[in-house]
Amino acid sequence: MNTNPNNSHCPHPLDVATLLTPIETGLYRGETSAAYGNMVGPFGGIISAVLMNAVWMHPERLGEPIALTVNFAGPIDDGEFIVTARASRTNRTTQHWYIELRQGDQVGATATAVFATRRDTWSATEVNFPAVATAATIEREPVIERAKWTAAYDMRFLHGGLDLDGEAVSDRDSVSSLWIRDEPPRPLDFVSLAAICDAFFPRIFVRRPKWVPIGTVSLTTYFHADAAALKLQGDRPMFGTARALHFGKGYFDQTAEMWSDNQALLATSHQVVYYKE
Amino acid sequence: MNTNPNNSHCPHPLDVATLLTPIETGLYRGETSAAYGNMVGPFGGIISAVLMNAVWMHPERLGEPIALTVNFAGPIDDGEFIVTARASRTNRTTQHWYIELRQGDQVGATATAVFATRRDTWSATEVNFPAVATAATIEREPVIERAKWTAAYDMRFLHGGLDLDGEAVSDRDSVSSLWIRDEPPRPLDFVSLAAICDAFFPRIFVRRPKWVPIGTVSLTTYFHADAAALKLQGDRPMFGTARALHFGKGYFDQTAEMWSDNQALLATSHQVVYYKE
Repeated sequence: MNTNPNNSHCPHPLDVATLLTPIETGLYRGETSAAYGNMVGPFGGIISAVLMNAVWMHPERLGEPIALTVNFAGPIDDGEFIVTARASRTNRTTQHWYIELRQGDQVGATATAVFATRRDTWSATEVNFPAVATAATIEREPVIERAKWTAAYDMRFLHGGLDLDGEAVSDRDSVSSLWIRDEPPRPLDFVSLAAICDAFFPRIFVRRPKWVPIGTVSLTTYFHADAAALKLQGDRPMFGTARALHFGKGYFDQTAEMWSDNQALLATSHQVVYYKE
Repeated sequence: MNTNPNNSHCPHPLDVATLLTPIETGLYRGETSAAYGNMVGPFGGIISAVLMNAVWMHPERLGEPIALTVNFAGPIDDGEFIVTARASRTNRTTQHWYIELRQGDQVGATATAVFATRRDTWSATEVNFPAVATAATIEREPVIERAKWTAAYDMRFLHGGLDLDGEAVSDRDSVSSLWIRDEPPRPLDFVSLAAICDAFFPRIFVRRPKWVPIGTVSLTTYFHADAAALKLQGDRPMFGTARALHFGKGYFDQTAEMWSDNQALLATSHQVVYYKE
């Protein structure tokens, strides 16, 4: 567990929110955390981080995450939940997982994950790190009171912040770019990276200045960085960018990149989101 | 089942390859098909289509697919397999599925899917249909003999075809654009769309003219079109484009768009692929 550097006796809120108590191998008890609350139930990113942690803590885990898909099956109530994680198949260098979060007899979320041991190979990145102002030169985005989890991140927007009271502009797009880190600062690991990859506001709110009910139904994150790369990043702000490709018939997609401040692509993520109207 | 318009007595090869015989509710027997063979085992796209079909055929299915994630857990041998599909949770308008393909006591693939009933809402597409030559003006790509499944598609490349005998060019990128349809032609449905979204060659072969062992480990497809939009497309060629964002430490991602010929974005797909060297 990482501790808050500001107070070594007090765990970081992300570690509290993703804490899983093993009941037996692959079976854990956890609890939602007010610090990562959303308008209804918990922030999806923190559920992604909890399910990542269920594999990360598992004694049979092989290597590091390559892919994580979380399906938000239904509303998650504030309070306790049970998480199960089992390896579907273990190969020499890869391992496949199925993970489930339950409350009572209801499935709240399902997930699959691929873990692997990684080796040095030829490498290349085909997208460019967007040339940008440093985080220190931009003001922090105000917390959104009705989405408590926004207080758990320091977000500094270069482009595409929320403006739900703004005017509808027909040529607006859904692109956002921002510096982002945990608040308070916390050294990056796969658990926190899984959460922060979902910290981009729903693209429909960037595209249209109008509040409507929304909810992510499926979220996939690909991890391009290994643990050494995450350690290099430490607790400094990362650079993120997100956009939607298509909105229609009640669902839109959104796709995001998360970069280290030394211009390494740490993760990409994709999700499909329900919206009303 | 769709039939081959060229011979009404003979089912289309895609229908043969995705045929599932129910043993009991949510439990099916299937068999790999030589027409969709790859270098080792079956083409990943046909497995994605089989797992989609297991939900599509299920008597408890609600609505149409929104998202499908397939994890390729290990090599699939030519021959019989068993598929199980169960609803993890059914809500008023959405339904979550877990699907598994087994051979003997080994899991060959796992999948999750989100299905939903869709409604008319505000809609927008933020990427442009790439202005292109029509399919009829481009020559068909030759079949790749060691990847038998390539004969099951009519592919006509505008850009980024395979050139494994070419020279390494340092500024080459991994982008491909092509017209593609089932060969022989077959009216589009969600099963065939699930398969064709994986019919983009592994990006590393487009980027580097060098053959290395590769294998998709996880594939996610988002369906933006409903059944009516697929019916409109019929058996005409679709326009597809794909690219990679990052190659490193043994894995790369690739992302793709599949468009109807009347410029509707039908599906987007994302995958992460193992590679050696």
